[in-house]
Amino acid sequence: MLRTHQLGELNASLIGQTVTVTGWVARRRDHGGVAFVDLRDASGFAQVVVRDEKDFDPLRNEFVLQVTGTVERRPEGNENPALPSGEIELIADTVTVLNAAAPLPFQIDEHVEVGEEARLRHRYLDLRRPEPARIMRLRSEVNRTARNLLHEEGFIEVETPTLTRSTPEGARDFVVPARLSPGSWYALPQSPQLFKQLLQVGGIEKYFQIARCYRDEDFRADRQPEFTQLDIEASFVEQDDVIALGEKIVKSVWSLVGVDVPTPIRRMTYREVMEKYGSDKPDLRFGLELTDLTEYFADTPFRVFKAPYVGAVVMPGGASQPRRTLDAWQEWAKQRGARGLAYVLIQEDGSLTGPVSKNISEEEKAGLAAATGANPGDCIFFAAGETTPSRAILGAARVEIGHRVGLIKDAGPDVPAAEADWAFVWVVDAPMFEPASEAVASGDVAVGSGAWTAVHHAFTSPKPEFMDTFDTDPASALSYAYDIVVNGNEVGGGSIRIHQGEVQERVFKLMGLDEESAQSKFGFLLEGFKYGAPPHGGIAFGWDRIVALLAGTESIRDVIAFPKTGNGYDPLTAAPAPITDQQRKEAGVDATPEPKEGAPGQEAKAAQDAPDTTGA
Amino acid sequence: MLRTHQLGELNASLIGQTVTVTGWVARRRDHGGVAFVDLRDASGFAQVVVRDEKDFDPLRNEFVLQVTGTVERRPEGNENPALPSGEIELIADTVTVLNAAAPLPFQIDEHVEVGEEARLRHRYLDLRRPEPARIMRLRSEVNRTARNLLHEEGFIEVETPTLTRSTPEGARDFVVPARLSPGSWYALPQSPQLFKQLLQVGGIEKYFQIARCYRDEDFRADRQPEFTQLDIEASFVEQDDVIALGEKIVKSVWSLVGVDVPTPIRRMTYREVMEKYGSDKPDLRFGLELTDLTEYFADTPFRVFKAPYVGAVVMPGGASQPRRTLDAWQEWAKQRGARGLAYVLIQEDGSLTGPVSKNISEEEKAGLAAATGANPGDCIFFAAGETTPSRAILGAARVEIGHRVGLIKDAGPDVPAAEADWAFVWVVDAPMFEPASEAVASGDVAVGSGAWTAVHHAFTSPKPEFMDTFDTDPASALSYAYDIVVNGNEVGGGSIRIHQGEVQERVFKLMGLDEESAQSKFGFLLEGFKYGAPPHGGIAFGWDRIVALLAGTESIRDVIAFPKTGNGYDPLTAAPAPITDQQRKEAGVDATPEPKEGAPGQEAKAAQDAPDTTGA
Repeated sequence: MLRTHQLGELNASLIGQTVTVTGWVARRRDHGGVAFVDLRDASGFAQVVVRDEKDFDPLRNEFVLQVTGTVERRPEGNENPALPSGEIELIADTVTVLNAAAPLPFQIDEHVEVGEEARLRHRYLDLRRPEPARIMRLRSEVNRTARNLLHEEGFIEVETPTLTRSTPEGARDFVVPARLSPGSWYALPQSPQLFKQLLQVGGIEKYFQIARCYRDEDFRADRQPEFTQLDIEASFVEQDDVIALGEKIVKSVWSLVGVDVPTPIRRMTYREVMEKYGSDKPDLRFGLELTDLTEYFADTPFRVFKAPYVGAVVMPGGASQPRRTLDAWQEWAKQRGARGLAYVLIQEDGSLTGPVSKNISEEEKAGLAAATGANPGDCIFFAAGETTPSRAILGAARVEIGHRVGLIKDAGPDVPAAEADWAFVWVVDAPMFEPASEAVASGDVAVGSGAWTAVHHAFTSPKPEFMDTFDTDPASALSYAYDIVVNGNEVGGGSIRIHQGEVQERVFKLMGLDEESAQSKFGFLLEGFKYGAPPHGGIAFGWDRIVALLAGTESIRDVIAFPKTGNGYDPLTAAPAPITDQQRKEAGVDATPEPKEGAPGQEAKAAQDAPDTTGA
Repeated sequence: MLRTHQLGELNASLIGQTVTVTGWVARRRDHGGVAFVDLRDASGFAQVVVRDEKDFDPLRNEFVLQVTGTVERRPEGNENPALPSGEIELIADTVTVLNAAAPLPFQIDEHVEVGEEARLRHRYLDLRRPEPARIMRLRSEVNRTARNLLHEEGFIEVETPTLTRSTPEGARDFVVPARLSPGSWYALPQSPQLFKQLLQVGGIEKYFQIARCYRDEDFRADRQPEFTQLDIEASFVEQDDVIALGEKIVKSVWSLVGVDVPTPIRRMTYREVMEKYGSDKPDLRFGLELTDLTEYFADTPFRVFKAPYVGAVVMPGGASQPRRTLDAWQEWAKQRGARGLAYVLIQEDGSLTGPVSKNISEEEKAGLAAATGANPGDCIFFAAGETTPSRAILGAARVEIGHRVGLIKDAGPDVPAAEADWAFVWVVDAPMFEPASEAVASGDVAVGSGAWTAVHHAFTSPKPEFMDTFDTDPASALSYAYDIVVNGNEVGGGSIRIHQGEVQERVFKLMGLDEESAQSKFGFLLEGFKYGAPPHGGIAFGWDRIVALLAGTESIRDVIAFPKTGNGYDPLTAAPAPITDQQRKEAGVDATPEPKEGAPGQEAKAAQDAPDTTGA
């Protein structure tokens, strides 16, 4: 080693000893012909006193030094209680410059304000800052904690393939040309879903993996083309078993940031959270439940409220919002696809103002505060129309109100995780199916061509009471699915799976996958189900999001060592990039695939799907 | 849970208790109107006694059952001491068929003889066999052990990207079209090499990862397109530090199979192992060192031995090989690119026979046994010609002799790892460079267009004594590289890296990468080296191979949950496969990439490299 001690290990117990340390020049102050260098390594900082001008003259920020010297007590009054090494300083005997540093594109500083693209382009400099370095260490501990817990529970880690077959699961696959089968492609997995189920068919019984997954989506706010999930599957389990395991994991990783998560975590049905919070990811750190006023306005004279659904959410103290703020709410709602956000203001004297109050009956006005639980000084926002979108806009307004009114205490730069609010909930009993049109509208790829598609995924089991009817009455069928939500973030989700080929085929059929397509896309799963598949279920946790929450940062980019920005661009390596003609030719991108020996039926079908190109 | 106990937990202490178990029917015997079912789960086997005909009548192999019953002592004489549950049996009260099984494509049996393709096509059945299941469990424990050790040593796990930039490292990249940048491609990483070095530049200091890596190689014997390595890098370390850490890892994972690896592990220089064993991966479980006879035959009358190098290896007892065996050796050598394998047989009376003995001088004959250490009854094999290929064929002959003479005790089906021979060695002081022609001949992609290419990789530091001369005298330069070899397998390798941009540029230049190519391919690394890169080094272990050795299997396919066969084909999912026209169109495979904002110089270059295709 080029050092005897890490800087964070230096303290008063070493006074008088000769040590060798290494690190980066974080700061240098010259005072009375002596240089005081704050040296930084992964463990912390220490002050190095360099007395020889020829030693300190060349030193610049971020030079890499090896310093041998004597640990001495700092002169009285110069102690720095903020540092573990704050009582001592290192009097340099020899200073070796291990490497120089050119002037930096940005300063390495806790409080640096620099654009994200610049930070990511020089991510190796960004990572020298205390906060990003802390997050990388936290992430490592989160992985370690979860793995140890799962090992203790008897789970085994299995690495599943990432060069596999294209099997749509709700998003687009990334594809990889296979040079040795010109014209054929691998796909990168959207999750290890099918493999972890096949491992259950294989008798592994308790599987986990911190798995890299890939989804070629249009980059919404905070998506990455590659992301990480903690992936779990087990045989002979029921919903309660997976939920109990999930709670152990949540409890253990949140304890790393000093948060005790009380268990069992409450459960709510999908129906209940949609009614009360207008979202399947409700933020339960505050109340402000939606009120269903459909009945209340059943005979209203107000045309707008003659609708399949009328609902409201109350903004405490919202009556005092100025007109321009109320106008801005309209804009806010329009950006979310609503026509606007009707409102009533309850004045301190109990009178109602605002446009809606002019249109509803006196009787409706009189009972409104009581019906919604609003008080004088509050604002009531309304949505009317189809149930789903109306609840969605009220649910979004509810969260916005929670932030504006100060009901939400997020972890962040100024709020340690242990002092923030955390509200966990399991959302259970989700519908099995939704109209395919709704799924496509929300950006997913429908797996089949049917009118219905899976809310969770096609492998989710119906609850037993819907086993006979899910394909004749898909709108009513509930599934054995469970999502864990914290503070409005879905951080994990899973289900009890279908383990019987016949049931799986009925689901595929309802989703509009004919037998041939089902065979072509999922034939290997259906084949596996023939030979004694055990009942099984599992869960996957969104690991990047969980670490971001623990770290108190809003962006998952902050918890990824080398993240991509919008559009999947990597500012560090400038990937993606063009490839050479030779690479293209070798990859066989433009070749027509040859039929493969082995599974003739399938290949004939496959060959028809091949792109119509001339060979390279 | 659908069970109260795992089968492996059932034992005499539970006699009299009612339990519920689940598992697969491994075997059923009917006897006196009662069925005896061997039920199997992940934990083991137990015997279930089913008395009711309507319960046992439908049961077939691999049906999945849930059985509730009473644990009873087996009748005297029926105990099975080979099973933990061998003292007891479960008298079934209720038998529920959780799933049926169709007739199997092959029987699930320890001794099944079935083709590998069939096994892999139904890998989920294969994994139910005890040995594959044992290997999956072992692999999980190997991961756990290594990670725990590294955490204890202060290393942190960092996940590096797998959608990155194409940066040739000695093999072909797999490439992935980027839909959101039509015509541009990501590459899958051959290793996290550049990222782990940049993490050192970023002050992480101690990094590890069990990393998925990708190499698009022509599939030699036992390669996989995706494979796993335990990847490690640290700052401020010297060669001895990395070697010491590597030994801890080796010691800890071999201890899992009951093998104590004595440390420190011996070290030999590259030069020494090439001289003595004709290989940089010497099998040191036995002696039979090569003898250099170049001097000995300096004045030989035998034309074939007038060569830059003449060497020999002795086969103990080889004089008794029949003529057809000696002829077969010639074939063996020819398959390995040699012209043949000259030999001399030393008869029991000390006389020499065989073709070579007729061509060499009396004096040469007289001293030959002493010069090679051969005894009466032995065979001496010779190679003559250029040094490198001659030593290589003698080295290969040495290993073949070791096997034939029975000097090698591999772990395997009949030899537990703890009883096998294990010989570890670090090979150090490898040359920095080799002629590019040799690298290409052995199947690698030369990174530059120069006459010399890196033996390890382009980021390996020269030893200090060659720092000034490595680019003027590349043939002599030795590197700070170290490989760990066990029983002739290279299971890990690493180096102290170059950390100074100027040195890195000299290496690139020698390898024929001009400044523009170096910038285009490795610009982000060179940029990082500007800002205070610390001295650093690391190692990567071939994790699949290590698990295979520990498991006592020859093929890494046996230690991969879902491996690919030759040519990168996955018999389970039939990947790779054609993609649809729509997928191709969406992926932007046929688009011409647009120049990107940001790094104008680089993009101009990149655009020239773009494939000349018309947009889709």
